[in-house]
Amino acid sequence: MSNDAFQDCYPDDLSHCYGCGKNNIDGHQLKSFWHTEGGLISNKGSEKTIAHFIPEQCHTAIPGFVYGGLIASLIDCHGTGSAAAMAFRQANRPMGTEPALRFVTAALNVSYLAPTPMGTELELIGTFSEVKERKVVVEITVSAGDVICAKGTVVAVKMPESMQLN
Amino acid sequence: MSNDAFQDCYPDDLSHCYGCGKNNIDGHQLKSFWHTEGGLISNKGSEKTIAHFIPEQCHTAIPGFVYGGLIASLIDCHGTGSAAAMAFRQANRPMGTEPALRFVTAALNVSYLAPTPMGTELELIGTFSEVKERKVVVEITVSAGDVICAKGTVVAVKMPESMQLN
Repeated sequence: MSNDAFQDCYPDDLSHCYGCGKNNIDGHQLKSFWHTEGGLISNKGSEKTIAHFIPEQCHTAIPGFVYGGLIASLIDCHGTGSAAAMAFRQANRPMGTEPALRFVTAALNVSYLAPTPMGTELELIGTFSEVKERKVVVEITVSAGDVICAKGTVVAVKMPESMQLN
Repeated sequence: MSNDAFQDCYPDDLSHCYGCGKNNIDGHQLKSFWHTEGGLISNKGSEKTIAHFIPEQCHTAIPGFVYGGLIASLIDCHGTGSAAAMAFRQANRPMGTEPALRFVTAALNVSYLAPTPMGTELELIGTFSEVKERKVVVEITVSAGDVICAKGTVVAVKMPESMQLN
């Protein structure tokens, strides 16, 4: 089993996402992993996923606080990455094997619960509220230290063939 | 009356937003305006708002398609900008006069209806489903050409004093 980030297992031609693609040098390059309660990162034995991100200075909303659009973006990519990882697990296949199981976002809902301070590493935790072959729903919290600043839901659906091979 | 973009009327110390702040040189600098049915841009006589944005090459999801996090970000900033403009209108005050009426996002819901193609100018149209002094709800469509690619709802609330003067 590999401890690669979910997104680093995407095929090269599906790794250009601004939020999480390893081949997008201008993007956020979010990295998501399986997460166990004890804090160990593993790709089995847990139904939670985790990602960390430190916003850059430019990712400001009001001075001192993180831009909500960035938070939505992180939730989006952590959600679709978690969905893909779960799909591979359900198929009993190592992530990264062909054919790729790649998900896109059908709906993204974010509630901003508290202003998110700059200068703090953000932690995203994902759990699964629905798992079907073509649809996975991921519930995500975004925390800064002990404070949950945002909650989000990502309805992820298997990428339609019309979006491939462009 | 001015035809300045809503966001260009924000005070300098509230103009650093990554999505729309005129003082954020690394950001998207989205510009929102009042919109009349005839296509003329005006800051009165209409209950719709409009913004245009051309995604950059890096704003990719899957190659050929626009990153959903960017679409969420544009909806977010067009929503809060539209909310602020409506608040000034309701107060019978020109936008940009002190004290500032600045809104932040309490909730952001986005439905992705169709893949959004790269290389096309996106158009955001905002309408108002709720207008109160401290809460404005804006419904937004994002179109590429004749296709509505996404719909969003922004629940915007007046910026809490705790977020100011940082």
